[in-house]
Amino acid sequence: MYNLLPNLSVIEASSFVASPTAGLYLAQMGAEVIRVDQIGGGPDFRRWPVTENNDSLYWENLNRAKKSVALDLGRPEGRELLQALVRATGQFVTNFPVGGFLSHELLAEGRPDLITVRVMGWADGSPALDYTVNNAVGYPMLTGNGPEPVNHVLPAWDLLTGAYAAFALMAAIQRRSATGEGGEVRLPLSDIAIGTVANLGGIAEVMYGGANRPRLGNAVYGLFGRDFVTRDGERTMIVVVTPRQWANLIIALDVGDAVAAIEAARGVSFAKDDGLRFDHRDALYPLFEKAIAARDHADLAGAFDAGGIVHSPYRTMLDAANDPALVADNPIFGAVENPSGFTYPAAGAFATIPQADRLPPAPAPRNGAHSEEVLAERLSLPSGEIARLIDAGIVGVT
Amino acid sequence: MYNLLPNLSVIEASSFVASPTAGLYLAQMGAEVIRVDQIGGGPDFRRWPVTENNDSLYWENLNRAKKSVALDLGRPEGRELLQALVRATGQFVTNFPVGGFLSHELLAEGRPDLITVRVMGWADGSPALDYTVNNAVGYPMLTGNGPEPVNHVLPAWDLLTGAYAAFALMAAIQRRSATGEGGEVRLPLSDIAIGTVANLGGIAEVMYGGANRPRLGNAVYGLFGRDFVTRDGERTMIVVVTPRQWANLIIALDVGDAVAAIEAARGVSFAKDDGLRFDHRDALYPLFEKAIAARDHADLAGAFDAGGIVHSPYRTMLDAANDPALVADNPIFGAVENPSGFTYPAAGAFATIPQADRLPPAPAPRNGAHSEEVLAERLSLPSGEIARLIDAGIVGVT
Repeated sequence: MYNLLPNLSVIEASSFVASPTAGLYLAQMGAEVIRVDQIGGGPDFRRWPVTENNDSLYWENLNRAKKSVALDLGRPEGRELLQALVRATGQFVTNFPVGGFLSHELLAEGRPDLITVRVMGWADGSPALDYTVNNAVGYPMLTGNGPEPVNHVLPAWDLLTGAYAAFALMAAIQRRSATGEGGEVRLPLSDIAIGTVANLGGIAEVMYGGANRPRLGNAVYGLFGRDFVTRDGERTMIVVVTPRQWANLIIALDVGDAVAAIEAARGVSFAKDDGLRFDHRDALYPLFEKAIAARDHADLAGAFDAGGIVHSPYRTMLDAANDPALVADNPIFGAVENPSGFTYPAAGAFATIPQADRLPPAPAPRNGAHSEEVLAERLSLPSGEIARLIDAGIVGVT
Repeated sequence: MYNLLPNLSVIEASSFVASPTAGLYLAQMGAEVIRVDQIGGGPDFRRWPVTENNDSLYWENLNRAKKSVALDLGRPEGRELLQALVRATGQFVTNFPVGGFLSHELLAEGRPDLITVRVMGWADGSPALDYTVNNAVGYPMLTGNGPEPVNHVLPAWDLLTGAYAAFALMAAIQRRSATGEGGEVRLPLSDIAIGTVANLGGIAEVMYGGANRPRLGNAVYGLFGRDFVTRDGERTMIVVVTPRQWANLIIALDVGDAVAAIEAARGVSFAKDDGLRFDHRDALYPLFEKAIAARDHADLAGAFDAGGIVHSPYRTMLDAANDPALVADNPIFGAVENPSGFTYPAAGAFATIPQADRLPPAPAPRNGAHSEEVLAERLSLPSGEIARLIDAGIVGVT
């Protein structure tokens, strides 16, 4: 947590990963992010993993450092309160449908400088999720050894969309500061997925060659990088990106003569060319497999570290969670008490800013914990009116 | 391309994916992003995929809409020019090492309000890449059917880091506008990876249960979602996230009685509970496999679309590139001439902003194309001095 954005308030009406992470990143940089939720929680409020009491460990991590206003969004009065909060605040992050009661056009009535950032599925407004846009753009057909497609487990498109949404909100605010103009920033997952394929050269590649890239298992395309297994059975990813790393890898494994023999036989030099190291992997992989299989992991890791070679053993998530350097001793983490009642290391902002004060991670709110405070402050509702709304079941409190 | 950030200039000294995408997203929103490259190109200038002339289709897509200043960074005079450009501009995005001639402390001498956004490998400054932080946090051990780990092909951590870096720069600029303070925002890939594991509930999950999640192949954890194969052999991802989608899926497949029988036998109701649909997948999967295997894809797709059910067939990247809705007819794309000489659909900003004018995607610069312009404008170097630097091989031009 850093306090870089103390003057920014955002209303968030959202679920799942993309839109909540946009709000999370803003909140962790010091913005006031006010979630407006259905009383009792939205569609992802019980999303797995859950505790024995059915409290979501997923929800309570994606919604840290936010406030929660609970409304009955099934009733007109609840919907009008959400609309009023958006208009009163001026910044809105959501994955609600592009039409309907949270359409930008409707919300901008009476608030023409409103900025809405809307995460969508397909660009035409029809529903899509990370897992469906992913296979629509082709990555599962490139993942693993084949022939079956392999889905990623990390919701990468959601995550990229969430971070880009936080950026896009800031960019739209900059424009508004200069011109006074608001507007809606629409971010379909499908456009982020296919746009990323293009950005990484994928559209150009398949159109240039007229064919798909072959499946490569755990090898990295276009350079020397792959998983290898050490003598003591540790599977390790090794990737070479600079001439110095290549030279040091050859020294560390003592394969200089053998590499030189391949170079001589094939009339190439691997010293400065990633692509050649990939092209000639049929000769290089067996050589490096053998050299690595002859050494223990600890021995190799020391030599690799000394040579600046990029490597890491494969670990489980439980291993990672118990690695002190990654979690317990990592300053981005802090233990906080959570709505679930379970205390564990929680992440704050990803960033480290040596020149600013880092604040500890904050917990997610309980559903409706800030209903009264926010309705009083933002909409100037008198306490009697808030009490009426609570009695009527329009407003929920913890 | 949108012109949301016309008053922002950024110096970028970077390679590979994360740091270049930060600059790309800024440039596509209208910022002036000036790459400073080694004369002849940095370590990723020939990164695959490449054309027959060894022009990188990867580099020319990750660096669209930017300017290029080419310097000999191996010589003190070249390094000093880069330092001077950073100080003159005030915003810097890089993945150069945290120490050395581009350390924030050194650059901030004479420019105390400088903002540096630095993508790193491990938080301690040692080298890491997307592919190594990924296996360090455990995702490959959860991907695929096992028992072997499966690397993702999409460089998801790089991409998330790039978008977050663009956001973090904007947040740091907001702070500076309010306080006058600059600073360095450090973004280690390793912190973004383990922080994301935490944000998605993964740290809490493994610490709560003391065990790793089982591998699920192409099934989605904690809800009803998986790949199924239709009668005509189309493999399709289907994911249900709302009660309405579940109800409509049952209707579309005419499995209401069979689902009710499972509910009765097991004493549960699937109508509103994602987790139960996952818990009882041993009974549900075979039922849905059979129902889907009895229908052709086109028939099912129509019924699914009508019911708002999220689905998509698996496709190759070549299929995706040739899908008019995704690429040719998609307004985020436009065909531009590129440094490689190959013309193809290029992506602009992911965002769609109905209230702003969309500009067409722009090409990447040729190495050194803007050297003279930028050195004259930013450093007020006289033309004679620039000519001397070019003659001396300190400055490169196209």
